Amino acid sequence: MAALPPPPAATSLPDGADRPVPPAVLDELRRIVGAEHVLVSDGEVEPYSRDATPLFRARPGAVVLPAATREVAAVLRLASAHGIPVTPRGAGSNLAAATIPEHGGIVLVLTRMNAVKEITGDELLAVVEAGVTTAELADACAARGLLYAPDPGSRTVSTVAGNVAMCAGGLRGLKYGVTRNYVLGLEVVLPTGEVIRTGGRLWKDVAGYDLTRLLTGSEGTLGVITEVTVALLPMPALARTGVAYFSSLADAGRAVAGVIHDGLVPATLEFLDNRCINAVEDFARLGLDREAGALLLFGDDGTPEAVERSLALMAATCERVGARGITLSRDVAESEALLTARRCSLPALARLAPVTMLEDATVPRPRLAEMVDRIDAICARHEVVVATFGHAGDGNLHPTIVFDPADGDARHRAEAAFGEVFDAAIALGGTITGEHGVGAAKRPYLERRLGADQMALLRRLKAAFDPVGILNPGKLGS
Amino acid sequence: MAALPPPPAATSLPDGADRPVPPAVLDELRRIVGAEHVLVSDGEVEPYSRDATPLFRARPGAVVLPAATREVAAVLRLASAHGIPVTPRGAGSNLAAATIPEHGGIVLVLTRMNAVKEITGDELLAVVEAGVTTAELADACAARGLLYAPDPGSRTVSTVAGNVAMCAGGLRGLKYGVTRNYVLGLEVVLPTGEVIRTGGRLWKDVAGYDLTRLLTGSEGTLGVITEVTVALLPMPALARTGVAYFSSLADAGRAVAGVIHDGLVPATLEFLDNRCINAVEDFARLGLDREAGALLLFGDDGTPEAVERSLALMAATCERVGARGITLSRDVAESEALLTARRCSLPALARLAPVTMLEDATVPRPRLAEMVDRIDAICARHEVVVATFGHAGDGNLHPTIVFDPADGDARHRAEAAFGEVFDAAIALGGTITGEHGVGAAKRPYLERRLGADQMALLRRLKAAFDPVGILNPGKLGS
Repeated sequence: MAALPPPPAATSLPDGADRPVPPAVLDELRRIVGAEHVLVSDGEVEPYSRDATPLFRARPGAVVLPAATREVAAVLRLASAHGIPVTPRGAGSNLAAATIPEHGGIVLVLTRMNAVKEITGDELLAVVEAGVTTAELADACAARGLLYAPDPGSRTVSTVAGNVAMCAGGLRGLKYGVTRNYVLGLEVVLPTGEVIRTGGRLWKDVAGYDLTRLLTGSEGTLGVITEVTVALLPMPALARTGVAYFSSLADAGRAVAGVIHDGLVPATLEFLDNRCINAVEDFARLGLDREAGALLLFGDDGTPEAVERSLALMAATCERVGARGITLSRDVAESEALLTARRCSLPALARLAPVTMLEDATVPRPRLAEMVDRIDAICARHEVVVATFGHAGDGNLHPTIVFDPADGDARHRAEAAFGEVFDAAIALGGTITGEHGVGAAKRPYLERRLGADQMALLRRLKAAFDPVGILNPGKLGS
Repeated sequence: MAALPPPPAATSLPDGADRPVPPAVLDELRRIVGAEHVLVSDGEVEPYSRDATPLFRARPGAVVLPAATREVAAVLRLASAHGIPVTPRGAGSNLAAATIPEHGGIVLVLTRMNAVKEITGDELLAVVEAGVTTAELADACAARGLLYAPDPGSRTVSTVAGNVAMCAGGLRGLKYGVTRNYVLGLEVVLPTGEVIRTGGRLWKDVAGYDLTRLLTGSEGTLGVITEVTVALLPMPALARTGVAYFSSLADAGRAVAGVIHDGLVPATLEFLDNRCINAVEDFARLGLDREAGALLLFGDDGTPEAVERSLALMAATCERVGARGITLSRDVAESEALLTARRCSLPALARLAPVTMLEDATVPRPRLAEMVDRIDAICARHEVVVATFGHAGDGNLHPTIVFDPADGDARHRAEAAFGEVFDAAIALGGTITGEHGVGAAKRPYLERRLGADQMALLRRLKAAFDPVGILNPGKLGS
């Protein structure tokens, strides 16, 4: 892999205006979804030319907001007939530029399809339309004593279908897994307009290829997800959290190893490095230990006895490996307060400079501290400021480089540093993205991870779904 | 769907001898794997002309047993070049005729590749070659205090790669999920000979399409799995089981609903109907209640306090809905004794008649009793003897028809009955196969479940992996 040439700059996208939507097609789109749901003016389409990824931008020719699956199918048939690119989009909270309409055409926004169709405790499942937000689903479930386990950081705005399209992760990965582990069935419109239903209401169903899981994480390149059936769990009776400070990330890593060695698979194992701790403390004044090399958040949920046992064991392990200080929450409010340190890491870092590049490299759990050391060394060499936080339980790191684009070649140095960070993650048995996706942002690095043969297979798979190549062109498999 | 014509008889397979392996190719195969690992005589290949599915049989032209991934790759390149069918096979314990070499050619047996390469508690994962048996893996893990959760009924003989190829289920589906939920990474040889690695050692990895999960359950039609990385769990401290008898399956269904309503997701919720109870009692003399309409096995594992609480709650629920009798195990030996009733259901039924057709229809959990009623009505109408047992926790039923093939059109009546059983399962929101796969046995019914558009997509997917169409032809996607 080392022989590959350096990737092109990830952010040099073509202008979307190179593929405008012809007036006759616009008329047809208005007929399908209603004129008020087809946006074309600069001001109207501007919010859909970007997502949550800094620096990426491309103008779509039109933004279309359908209200029903049959409208989605009609739009896709029309787009296939005319060879017009279609980029599906939920809330646009993606962090890998996966919803940027690089080749112009239509941005298809699913947020009007926002009905929670069913929540059943008897079957432990929910059925929702594509545009329901993750938090709406989770809250509606919680009101019935049910847990929708995936909890991506963007949950208050992100949509369920967007979570599925990206296979979103979150803070509970070690114990609960990621979105993939909860998707039971999908309604999907193929790029050529056929509506299929994959999976269904069952945990056990092996009739046919597992299209449900193939579509999960396919980044809107294989089909447009219009309805999602997800598995639920009974709401745990209790959740508690603790915080431990360590002199170094290596010590925090030893604590994590000790927790696993004790036979625990806790709900929460999150870390912040020293620079993150200080950014959060500057931002939120939580009284964190600014001198600590690492902060480890640990928590669990379940029956009261199980949670007490788990928390006590984890605190004892932290103590044993030499924690500088340990605090345990006494109730839900205190747990939430402790989690605040982790949840506000990104906004705290975003205050440090105009641009915040948040990455998502992932390594096997025991290599976490080693990986952070490598990140620090790489970033020092490239003279960029980096802070790292993330999910210690599943090895998913979010190294975050902040810089001022006015500062000469800062952006170029940040990109060069991330290229080396990805190589380091792969060298340690890891990957270039744990939960944010590839999108346009990490496309230059994908072949390093998958190899040429698998890349070729991805392209053949894409063509099997999308012979005309209209769906989110430029992304995965294109 | 009702308009579809009745399917052709599932078991009328072409003779494998229609696609012999040319002598020059046999010479090359001997060069690749060694002459002693290429079997061609009638006596040698006979065991590989069938699997665990009754009535299905087709003679392969040759049986090839490779010892390494590079040998698998060389065999597939050779077969692709000559257009020779290749049917991958582990232990041949499949129950859907998925490993029958319907079109002759090569049966590629992976059992010589049987090294457990790594088990690590630090990373909670294991890496094994394709031919390691499920029980070998589980036992090696258990010796280190680790749990490999999937436990298909054939675990003592089935191979891990075979489990992955079929997405095998088992008795712990509700709490622990199925094989799919534990596959982290695969080494796969594509039909054209390229070796790819999908996924890896991480729970979170979204770099590229989810080929790991697509290959899981692909029934040997997309690639040959040569190495598997699976996720492990800490071994639960305690497991306990109980048995409850009910007057009817409807009562047992109410008990299951009550257990879920209490917020429990127990490890074991298995049922036997009255005919199964009597077959097992005739076979094993366990002292079962022969008058009961249903037997419900319930069990859980975890910390001692959690297990005690769970068992007590489940027993109370069974009591409340009117159980005729309840027994709780006091230790592991008693738990195993109680589980015996469930584990020996199939051998007990197999004694009733020369042919035992075991099916695998699955419905949403609350429809279980209703589905068993429909099965009984359908089988009564077709005058065939049926007994049903299965996984009450995940709605996965194993209706089993026993008959004597010498008895006129008994086989035809059995097939007709199962056709209606599948239609009933689909009508109740279920599927034609929960964990055994489609294979050749359920191929006639697959389109009823998926529809024509999804069937067409399956064929395009298959072609993207296997342009020449050599891999397990006739099965999924062919």
